[in-house]
Amino acid sequence: MIAFQDYYPDELAHCFGCGRLNEHGHQLKSFWDGEETVARFIPKPYHTAIPGYVNGGVLASLVDCHGTGTAAAAAYRAEHRDLGTLPPHRFVTAALRVDYLRPTPLGPELVIRGRVTSLQGRKVTVAATIQAGEEVTVRGEVVCVEMPDSMRPGAPSLPVPAPPDSPAALSRRSAP
Amino acid sequence: MIAFQDYYPDELAHCFGCGRLNEHGHQLKSFWDGEETVARFIPKPYHTAIPGYVNGGVLASLVDCHGTGTAAAAAYRAEHRDLGTLPPHRFVTAALRVDYLRPTPLGPELVIRGRVTSLQGRKVTVAATIQAGEEVTVRGEVVCVEMPDSMRPGAPSLPVPAPPDSPAALSRRSAP
Repeated sequence: MIAFQDYYPDELAHCFGCGRLNEHGHQLKSFWDGEETVARFIPKPYHTAIPGYVNGGVLASLVDCHGTGTAAAAAYRAEHRDLGTLPPHRFVTAALRVDYLRPTPLGPELVIRGRVTSLQGRKVTVAATIQAGEEVTVRGEVVCVEMPDSMRPGAPSLPVPAPPDSPAALSRRSAP
Repeated sequence: MIAFQDYYPDELAHCFGCGRLNEHGHQLKSFWDGEETVARFIPKPYHTAIPGYVNGGVLASLVDCHGTGTAAAAAYRAEHRDLGTLPPHRFVTAALRVDYLRPTPLGPELVIRGRVTSLQGRKVTVAATIQAGEEVTVRGEVVCVEMPDSMRPGAPSLPVPAPPDSPAALSRRSAP
């Protein structure tokens, strides 16, 4: 089975959280599971916080990349297009919210689940959970926006406008 | 100058984000700067998202660990105690919120700033920003709670209750 992230074009596949071409990264891989999406991840021993538990930053990263992957897959699905068809969908994060409901034990495989709660134009919101064994230890929400053309490799690198629908862009838009 | 995290006891200094004893981690180091706190971090080339920009999960991790470090330092300060005196303060994260205002360029040193917005008993809330050059690219908030005794190394490892003031504990408390 081919993961959402495996369809990202090579030049967009270096993400520390989910890029298949980043040998130092987490290489998260997300898939459809009915109307939900799912990814599985076994943290390394050094992904610790307090000994015995998974680091909160790593958990945030799993929520983040599963969210943007889910957003891309949902955008294809909404257009009745297959993953990997052109033009590519690639989302970046405008806002991330993570609630650590209880400590996440380090050792067992983690199951990350995503569900699209809103899809409006270039903005997709994804609710996510992380489960260790039977227990949901993390809840999160990711507000994703389609990557602006200015971020594409080869585009002039700076200055970069805030992504559309990012808090900065929204506050500018609502300014008098 | 000795960082907040350098005062963490050895058995609590393995965090992937800020543990001085985690050779694979970010080893973030935070300091007082008047009433604010500050940390500086140069991402590695593989901490990328889209090429040229810093990964959102890494940025979340910097906000997270600077937040819990700031919480510990503030707890000592509130008790007019020096960092490193006993008993140790060590905070974990109950909730993390990160707004990506604009893409964060990969290359320059990042400056992470923290400010305590609330300190009530075992719960400390920290507002944070990340700046690249002159520009604030990220705003965050970290709700930190003092690590429960059950998480200390040597304590029975499972089951672990939700930290006090975590969303799970709060919802249990407010349940009928």
